Amino acid sequence: MSNHKVPTSSANNPAAKPWGGRFSEATDTFVERFTASVSFDQRMALEDIQGSLAHAQMLSEVGVLSDGEYRKIATGLGDIAEEIKTGTFPWSVQLEDVHMNIEARLTERIGPIGKKLHTGRSRNDQVATDIRLWLRGHIDRIAAELTRLQSGLVALAEREADTIMPGFTHLQSAQPVTFGHHLLAWNAMLTRDFERLMDCRKRLNRSPLGAAALAGTSYPINRARTAELLGFDAPSENALDAVSDRDFAIEFCAFAALLLTHLSRASEELVLWASSQFDFIDLPDRFCTGSSIMPQKKNPDVPELVRGKTGRVNGHLVALLTLMKSQPLAYNKDNQEDKEPLFDTADTALDCLRAFADMVPALQAKRSNMLKAAARGFSTATDLADYLVRKGVAFRDAHEIVGQSVSFAIEQDKDLAELSLHQLQQFSGEIGEDVFAVLTLEGSVAARSHIGGTAPVQVRKACAQARSAIALRTVPSGTGLQGQCQ
Amino acid sequence: MSNHKVPTSSANNPAAKPWGGRFSEATDTFVERFTASVSFDQRMALEDIQGSLAHAQMLSEVGVLSDGEYRKIATGLGDIAEEIKTGTFPWSVQLEDVHMNIEARLTERIGPIGKKLHTGRSRNDQVATDIRLWLRGHIDRIAAELTRLQSGLVALAEREADTIMPGFTHLQSAQPVTFGHHLLAWNAMLTRDFERLMDCRKRLNRSPLGAAALAGTSYPINRARTAELLGFDAPSENALDAVSDRDFAIEFCAFAALLLTHLSRASEELVLWASSQFDFIDLPDRFCTGSSIMPQKKNPDVPELVRGKTGRVNGHLVALLTLMKSQPLAYNKDNQEDKEPLFDTADTALDCLRAFADMVPALQAKRSNMLKAAARGFSTATDLADYLVRKGVAFRDAHEIVGQSVSFAIEQDKDLAELSLHQLQQFSGEIGEDVFAVLTLEGSVAARSHIGGTAPVQVRKACAQARSAIALRTVPSGTGLQGQCQ
Amino acid sequence: MSNHKVPTSSANNPAAKPWGGRFSEATDTFVERFTASVSFDQRMALEDIQGSLAHAQMLSEVGVLSDGEYRKIATGLGDIAEEIKTGTFPWSVQLEDVHMNIEARLTERIGPIGKKLHTGRSRNDQVATDIRLWLRGHIDRIAAELTRLQSGLVALAEREADTIMPGFTHLQSAQPVTFGHHLLAWNAMLTRDFERLMDCRKRLNRSPLGAAALAGTSYPINRARTAELLGFDAPSENALDAVSDRDFAIEFCAFAALLLTHLSRASEELVLWASSQFDFIDLPDRFCTGSSIMPQKKNPDVPELVRGKTGRVNGHLVALLTLMKSQPLAYNKDNQEDKEPLFDTADTALDCLRAFADMVPALQAKRSNMLKAAARGFSTATDLADYLVRKGVAFRDAHEIVGQSVSFAIEQDKDLAELSLHQLQQFSGEIGEDVFAVLTLEGSVAARSHIGGTAPVQVRKACAQARSAIALRTVPSGTGLQGQCQ
Amino acid sequence: MSNHKVPTSSANNPAAKPWGGRFSEATDTFVERFTASVSFDQRMALEDIQGSLAHAQMLSEVGVLSDGEYRKIATGLGDIAEEIKTGTFPWSVQLEDVHMNIEARLTERIGPIGKKLHTGRSRNDQVATDIRLWLRGHIDRIAAELTRLQSGLVALAEREADTIMPGFTHLQSAQPVTFGHHLLAWNAMLTRDFERLMDCRKRLNRSPLGAAALAGTSYPINRARTAELLGFDAPSENALDAVSDRDFAIEFCAFAALLLTHLSRASEELVLWASSQFDFIDLPDRFCTGSSIMPQKKNPDVPELVRGKTGRVNGHLVALLTLMKSQPLAYNKDNQEDKEPLFDTADTALDCLRAFADMVPALQAKRSNMLKAAARGFSTATDLADYLVRKGVAFRDAHEIVGQSVSFAIEQDKDLAELSLHQLQQFSGEIGEDVFAVLTLEGSVAARSHIGGTAPVQVRKACAQARSAIALRTVPSGTGLQGQCQ
Repeated sequence: MSNHKVPTSSANNPAAKPWGGRFSEATDTFVERFTASVSFDQRMALEDIQGSLAHAQMLSEVGVLSDGEYRKIATGLGDIAEEIKTGTFPWSVQLEDVHMNIEARLTERIGPIGKKLHTGRSRNDQVATDIRLWLRGHIDRIAAELTRLQSGLVALAEREADTIMPGFTHLQSAQPVTFGHHLLAWNAMLTRDFERLMDCRKRLNRSPLGAAALAGTSYPINRARTAELLGFDAPSENALDAVSDRDFAIEFCAFAALLLTHLSRASEELVLWASSQFDFIDLPDRFCTGSSIMPQKKNPDVPELVRGKTGRVNGHLVALLTLMKSQPLAYNKDNQEDKEPLFDTADTALDCLRAFADMVPALQAKRSNMLKAAARGFSTATDLADYLVRKGVAFRDAHEIVGQSVSFAIEQDKDLAELSLHQLQQFSGEIGEDVFAVLTLEGSVAARSHIGGTAPVQVRKACAQARSAIALRTVPSGTGLQGQCQ
Repeated sequence: MSNHKVPTSSANNPAAKPWGGRFSEATDTFVERFTASVSFDQRMALEDIQGSLAHAQMLSEVGVLSDGEYRKIATGLGDIAEEIKTGTFPWSVQLEDVHMNIEARLTERIGPIGKKLHTGRSRNDQVATDIRLWLRGHIDRIAAELTRLQSGLVALAEREADTIMPGFTHLQSAQPVTFGHHLLAWNAMLTRDFERLMDCRKRLNRSPLGAAALAGTSYPINRARTAELLGFDAPSENALDAVSDRDFAIEFCAFAALLLTHLSRASEELVLWASSQFDFIDLPDRFCTGSSIMPQKKNPDVPELVRGKTGRVNGHLVALLTLMKSQPLAYNKDNQEDKEPLFDTADTALDCLRAFADMVPALQAKRSNMLKAAARGFSTATDLADYLVRKGVAFRDAHEIVGQSVSFAIEQDKDLAELSLHQLQQFSGEIGEDVFAVLTLEGSVAARSHIGGTAPVQVRKACAQARSAIALRTVPSGTGLQGQCQ
Repeated sequence: MSNHKVPTSSANNPAAKPWGGRFSEATDTFVERFTASVSFDQRMALEDIQGSLAHAQMLSEVGVLSDGEYRKIATGLGDIAEEIKTGTFPWSVQLEDVHMNIEARLTERIGPIGKKLHTGRSRNDQVATDIRLWLRGHIDRIAAELTRLQSGLVALAEREADTIMPGFTHLQSAQPVTFGHHLLAWNAMLTRDFERLMDCRKRLNRSPLGAAALAGTSYPINRARTAELLGFDAPSENALDAVSDRDFAIEFCAFAALLLTHLSRASEELVLWASSQFDFIDLPDRFCTGSSIMPQKKNPDVPELVRGKTGRVNGHLVALLTLMKSQPLAYNKDNQEDKEPLFDTADTALDCLRAFADMVPALQAKRSNMLKAAARGFSTATDLADYLVRKGVAFRDAHEIVGQSVSFAIEQDKDLAELSLHQLQQFSGEIGEDVFAVLTLEGSVAARSHIGGTAPVQVRKACAQARSAIALRTVPSGTGLQGQCQ
Repeated sequence: MSNHKVPTSSANNPAAKPWGGRFSEATDTFVERFTASVSFDQRMALEDIQGSLAHAQMLSEVGVLSDGEYRKIATGLGDIAEEIKTGTFPWSVQLEDVHMNIEARLTERIGPIGKKLHTGRSRNDQVATDIRLWLRGHIDRIAAELTRLQSGLVALAEREADTIMPGFTHLQSAQPVTFGHHLLAWNAMLTRDFERLMDCRKRLNRSPLGAAALAGTSYPINRARTAELLGFDAPSENALDAVSDRDFAIEFCAFAALLLTHLSRASEELVLWASSQFDFIDLPDRFCTGSSIMPQKKNPDVPELVRGKTGRVNGHLVALLTLMKSQPLAYNKDNQEDKEPLFDTADTALDCLRAFADMVPALQAKRSNMLKAAARGFSTATDLADYLVRKGVAFRDAHEIVGQSVSFAIEQDKDLAELSLHQLQQFSGEIGEDVFAVLTLEGSVAARSHIGGTAPVQVRKACAQARSAIALRTVPSGTGLQGQCQ
C-alpha cells in the first residue's frame, strides 16, 4: 500500500505550505512523509480536475470569477490534466495531497489567478467530491463486468440445461439436479449483488461540493449547478454530514464483500470439480498454472486466487468500519485512511469479475462424469419416498422405509435402482413395478417442474427470463475518466 | 450466548430421530447437545408455524391434503402456538431444532396426519422461510424506532436552529455552526440507514418455500400461493440458491454495522459534550448511572454503552461473512451458525435505537456554554479571509494574512475580534472598520445560507423538509409475531 | 445472546442504587435493563466471591477489618456461594451487576458489616479480577482438552504411519504422503496453539485487585497478599492500566481464532474425505446426522459445525478490537461489552476441542481407497524428475522432460509407471530400467527420510517425540470454580 | 496495493514458464498479470537470495553440488543482489514471482548450472522461508522502535511524576492522579505488546527449508544446517505444516492490532488533551498541520492518523484469518494473498511507533491547566468517603453521605473544599476540621502509595523499575537485509 515514490522536498519552509501562516516550525521530514497522501490520492487527479472545472464554471456563472479568469483557470487545468495523463506532472510530497499539488501547479502555470480557484470551497468538500466521482466511475465499470459475467453464465446454463449432476448438501450426494440449475443459483446471487451495487450508486451520487469545511460558505455559490455539471443527482442535504461521513464507501465495501463471498463459493466448487476425485469440469490451460517441482500439475489458480481475495475485501470492510467508529464530527485526519482500502476493493472486485467473465464461458462440463456421479449415492432416494407418499404412506413413514432400503442397498453394495422388486418390497408392500421409472435420474429431474425447480424445462424458462432482465439493464456509462488515469 | 436450557433426552434411540432409518449407532450425548439448535432457533417458533400453516393451506388447495386433513393440521398448529406463547411447550434437545420439535408435537396431538405436513418441503426451505419471516418482522420494528428517533431529532434541531456552537474539525474549533445544523448531520446519516434497511427488506422478501432440499419437489405445489399467503413479494427464482445463500442476513448486518457506526459517532459526541471540559449538554439522570466508589460521578452510560455495542455488531457481520466464505452449495451444517449473530444484531439495533429515541428529545443544550466556546478559538478566521477575498485579495493570500493575524492574536492572548483596527491593518491594508461586523458569530453563521448551509434559515427549511419526508414514509406493519414470542 | 431472565424491579427508587446519593430521578426501566449486566456477568459469581474472600482476608490482616468482621463476611460469602450453586440466589436487575447483587445480599444476611467489604476497592478492579479468574479457569480446561486431542491425534498418526495417500496442493494430487505425516501437520499447528495459550495465561495472571477506581487507594492494603491468595503471579504494575485494558481478552480471542482456523482446515479435509468422491475415511454415525427429506444421507455434521464456528470466534475478536479502539482511559461503560464475546469464545473453543478429541481417534481410514487415489494422478512425477537429476540432468530440464512424459501419458490414458521403457525413453535417453523402482509409491515415500519428511520411519520418530513433549506438559490445574458454576 | 509496474511480456510462450512442459495453451495475458505476485513479492528479493545461498552451501556440503558449482552460484547470486539494490534488475511479470525472476536471471548469468539451485526444494518451502526471514527482520526493527518509544515515555513519566491532573472514568473527572501515573499506564500496555512480539518471533523462527512441496525431498539434505546458516532456532517439525500454515503471520497481525489499539487509545487522549476544551498539552508544530481554509487551525494530525491506522491493521488481521479459514492442506494459490496485508501491517506498526517515539518526548504538559481541571469536578469526593470510613462509617453509608454533599455543592456552585465545616456537618456529624487536609489534591494523590498507586513516590519507583527492565532487554539485531532493500 505505501509506495513512497514522490520525492520529499529538502527546502522545507513552513510558509510554503498552504496553511503555513501561523506555524513557527517546519514539519518534520518523516512526519511529512507519514502524513502525506499524494502517493495514493494522485489516483483521483482527473476527478479532482473535473470537480475544479465545474466549481470554476459555477463561480464564473455567479460572478465570483470573471469570464477571463475562468477561461485561464480552465485552460490551465486542461494542460495539467495532459501532464498527468502523460506522466510528466511533477508530484511533490511537500504539497501533501493531490489537491495542493494541482493547485500549486496551476498557480505556477497561470499566476496568482490560480489561487482564486479555492474560493468558496475547502479540501474537505473537495476530497469528498473526488472520491465519489472516482468510485462512481468504478461502480459503472464493475456493473459492466458483472453483467458480462452474468451473460456468460446464463448462456452456459442454457447449454447445460439437460446435463445431470449430483446436487450436494453437506458435500454428500442429495438429489440429482441439472448443471444449468446449479449455474442459475450462481446467477441469482449475482443478480442481488448487481441490485446492491445500483442501490449503493444511488446513495453516493450526491454532490458534497459547496459544503466547504463543514458549515457551507458565505459566497453566493450555486450547489445545484455544480451537482448538475458533475452528473450528481442532487447536492447533499447537510454540509457537516457531506464532509464527514464515509458510509457510501463502507456500503460499497459491503457490496464487494458479498460479491467476493459469492465468487468464493463458486470458486470452491470449481476447485472441487476440477480435482481428479470429482473430475466434473475442465478448465482451459490459460486459467491454470503449473508447479516448479511437480511437472504433472495443472492448478486451478484463478478460482483459488479469487477465493483468497475474499479475505482482502472482508479486511477492507473491517478497516473502514473500524476507522469510522466513534469519530466525532466533522473531518478528522483519520479519514485520510479511507482511500487505500476503497481503491483496492474496487480494483479487486473488477479484476475478479473480469477473470470470472473470461473463464466461465470457457468451462467444459464433463457430462458423463457428472452423470455417473449422480447415478451413485442414492440420489433418487427422495423420489422413492415421494412415490410412497403418492401411494398413501405418510411422508415421515416413507422416509423410514427408504432409510431402511438404503441401509440394505449399502450392505449389498448396490444402488436403489439395482435392487430387485422383491428386495424393495420387503420394506413396503406399497412398492410396485412402476417404482423403477421413478428411480431414474431423468425422471427425478423432470419431476421437479415448478418455479425455481431443477427440471430442464424450468431451467430453460429461467434462462430466458434472466437474459431478458439483463438486456433491460441500463448500466450507467460513468465519466470515463478512470480509463485514462489509473 | 449458548444457553443450553433444553433437557437432553436420556432415551437416545437413533430410530427416534426424523432421519434415523439408516443409522446403526445413536448420536453421542455431547454431540447431540453440540449440534442441536433448538436452544436458540425456538425463537422462530411462531414463524415456523406461520410458514407451516401457509404450506398446509396450499397443499389442501392443490389437493395433496384433504380439507379434513388441513383443518386438523391447522387446529393442531394453532394449539401448539398457544403452548409456545404460554411457555408450556415441551422443548426437547433430542429433536434437534424448532422444526422437528413442532412437527413431533403435532403428530403427538393429531396423530399420523401430522406427518403429512412435511410433504413437498424440506427443513432447508423451511428454515430459510422462518428466518426471513423473523427478520422481516424485526426490520419493521427497527424501521419504526428509527423513524421515532429521527422525528425527535428533527424536532430538537428545529428547537436549536439558532443556537450557536463551535463546529469542530480535528476536535479543534473550526467555524461557528448552529446546533440544529449539527443535529441535522446526524439525521442525514440516519436517513441513508433507513433507505438501506428498506433496500434490504425488498431483497429478502422472497419466498424460499417449495425449494425443498435444493431441487424443488415433484409434488404439484403452488409456490406463488404460499408466497402470497406469507406476505412475500414473490417466490425466489432458483431453488438451490433459495436454500443455500444467506446474503440477506449479511446485508442486514452490514446495515446494522453502519447504523451503529453512526450512533457511535453521535455517542462519542454526547460523551464529549457531557464532560465538564465541554459542558455543552445535560443528560437527564435517568440515562446515567453513578459510581460505587466516587459519589460525585454522573456517568453518560447510555451513549457509552451504545458506542461499545458497535463492536458487537461489527463482529457479527464478520462472523457471517467468515461463515459463508467458500462454502460449496447447497446447505451445509455450517449455516446453523447464522442465527445467533443475526438475532443479536437485530436485538442490539432495536435496543440502541430505542435508547436513543428516548434520550435525544430529553437532551438539554447549555446554550450559553456553547456560545462562549464558539467565541473562543478564532472560529471566525475564515470569515476574515472571505472578507479579504471580497476586497480583492486572492484566497490563498488572504489565508496567509489571517494566519499571521491569528499568530499575533495568540501572542496577545486575544481573539481576532478583540484586536484593534490598527493591529489588524498591520497585516493588510485592505482591512477596514466594517471588518468587525464580519467577525461576529451571528454574522458568520447567517452568511452560510445555501442548501445544506448552517444559517438558521437554512436549518429551519431543512427541518421542514425532513419532517415531510418522514411523514411520507410507509413503514411496513410486519407480521406482528415477534411481539408475542421472544 | 441477550437473555433477560432477571426480573426488573418495580420499586425503582434511586436511593436504593449503590450510587444513588446525588441522583434526583430514577433510572428509566428500559434503561435499567439496557445497561444492566447481571444477566450475563452472573456467570462470574463464584470468582467474584473468591476475590472478595481474598480481599477480606487481606483487609483483616492489615487491620482494616477486625477478625470478627472478617469471619462474618467469610461465612456470609460462603453461604451466598451455596445459594448460587443451588440456584436459589435472588438475582435482581435493579442491582445492575453480579457485584452489587452479591454485596446487597451479603448485607441482607450479615447486616451493616457487609458494607465494609467494599473498603479499598472499586467495581473497576473487582470486575477486572473476576474476569481474569474466570478466563484463567477456562484456559486451564481448554489446555486439558487440547492436550487430549493431541494425544489422540498422535496415536492415530502412529497407527497410520505406513498408510499411503495422495498429498495435495491446489487440491490436485501432488506427491504421495503417509496419512500419519498428514495428521502430524495438524498436530504441529495445535502445538503452536498450545504455546500461544500458555503465553496468554502468563500475561493475564496478574492481580488488578487494589487498583481501585484507577489511582489505587488510601487504605494500607497489601496487593501482593491478595495476588498470592488468588494464585496470581504478581500484582499488576499500574493501577490505571489494570482497570482499563482488556488486551488479555483480545489475546485470548486471537488464540481462539487461530485454533478454530486450524480446526476449520482439518474439518474441511474431513468433509472432503468423507464425500463419496474422495471416500478416504469413515466417520462413526454418532458424529453425523441424517436428513429429514433424503433418507440416504449421512452428513458429517460435527466437522461442518466446527468449520462454521470459526466465524463466530473471528467475529468476537473483531468485536473486542472494535470495542477498545480509541477508548480514552480509564474505565468506560463500553467495557461492559467485553464479557459476552469472551465467554462465548471460551465456550466455543472448549466445545470444539471436545468434539474433535472424541471424534479423531474414532476415524477409520479407508486405506485401500487412499492408496488407489495416490496411484492415480502422476503423483510420482517428481520422483522421475529427481531420478533424472541423479543421472546428471539439471532440475529444470528434468522438469520439462517429465512434463512432456505426463502429457503423453494423459493422451494414452495411462499413469507414468504404465508407460513402457521405450515410450519413456523418447523423452530422455537417460532413462533406464531402474526407473520403475522409483515410480512406486512406497519407494517415493520412503525416500523422503529427513526431519519432517513423510517417510514412515520419520513419522514414527516424530510421533515418539510428540508423545514425549505432551507428556512433559504441565497443564495448570486452575481454580476449579468454573466446573461448579456455569 | 496493486501497483502493476512490471511490464507484461508479449512473447507469451508456455514453454518459457518454469512449469510449461505439459501445457498446450499460453496463459492469458490478463490472467498472467492477475496471478503474478512479482509486483509485491520482489520486496523479499534479498531474503530469497539469502535463503538460496544457504541452500546452495548446504547442497555443496552434502555433495549434491560440487564446490565449483556452488561458487558459481554464490557469485551469481551476489551479483544479482547488487542489481536489485541498485535498481537495475530486469523484473518480468511473465516469470510470475520473485523466485522465478531470480532463478531465471541466475541461469542467464551463469548458464545451466543455475538450474541446479532448485534441487531438493520447491517454491513452497522457498516462499515460506523468505517470508519468515522478511518478517523476522521487521520484528527486530519494530522491537527497537518500541523500545525507543518506551524509553521516552518513562523519561516523560518521571519528569511529570508530581504533575496533578484529573483521572477520568466515563470521561468524567473521577479522582486526581499524577500525569506520570497516566503515562505509565501507556507504558504497561506497551510492555505487554513487546512480550507478545517476542513470543511471536520465537514461534516463527523455525526453518521450513527442505520441506519441499509438502513431503520433504529424496535428496540427502541437511535441514539443521540451513536452519543454522539462516539464524533459525531449528528446522520446522513437519514438512506439510511448514509449507501450508501461515499462523505466524496471523499472530504477528494480532500483535500489531493490539499495539495499534493501544496507540489509538493514547492518540484519542492526545487529541482530547490538545483540544481547547481540555488544553492539557501542547504538541510541537512539526507533528501538526494546518487547514487550507481555516488559518487559525493547528490540527493534531499525527495522533489522528495513528488512530485511523488501527482500522488498517484490524482489517489485515481479518483478511488473513478469512484467507486461511477452511483451506485444505497443503499449499493453495490463495496463500499468495498473505503478503500484502503482512507487509503493510509491518510497515504501519513501524511507522506509527516511529511517529510516537519522536512525538512523545516532545509533549509539553500544561501543568497549571491540568491542576485547575483536577480542582474542579469533585475529584476528591472519594477521599471524603475514605475519611468517613476511617471515622467508623461503613463505606456504603459514607458513599451516600458524600453523594448528598456533592448534590448540595452543585446547587451552591462550589467544590467540596469550598463548603464550610458547618455545611459539611449537616450531612455527617463525623466530619471535623481535619477534613480539609483530606480534600486537597496533593493529599489525595500522596495517600495512594502502594504498588501501582498514583502517589509520586510510587510513580518514581515504577519509572526506575521500568527503566531497568528496558535496559535489560536484548532486542535481536536481525538480519539487516531489510534496511537495504525495501
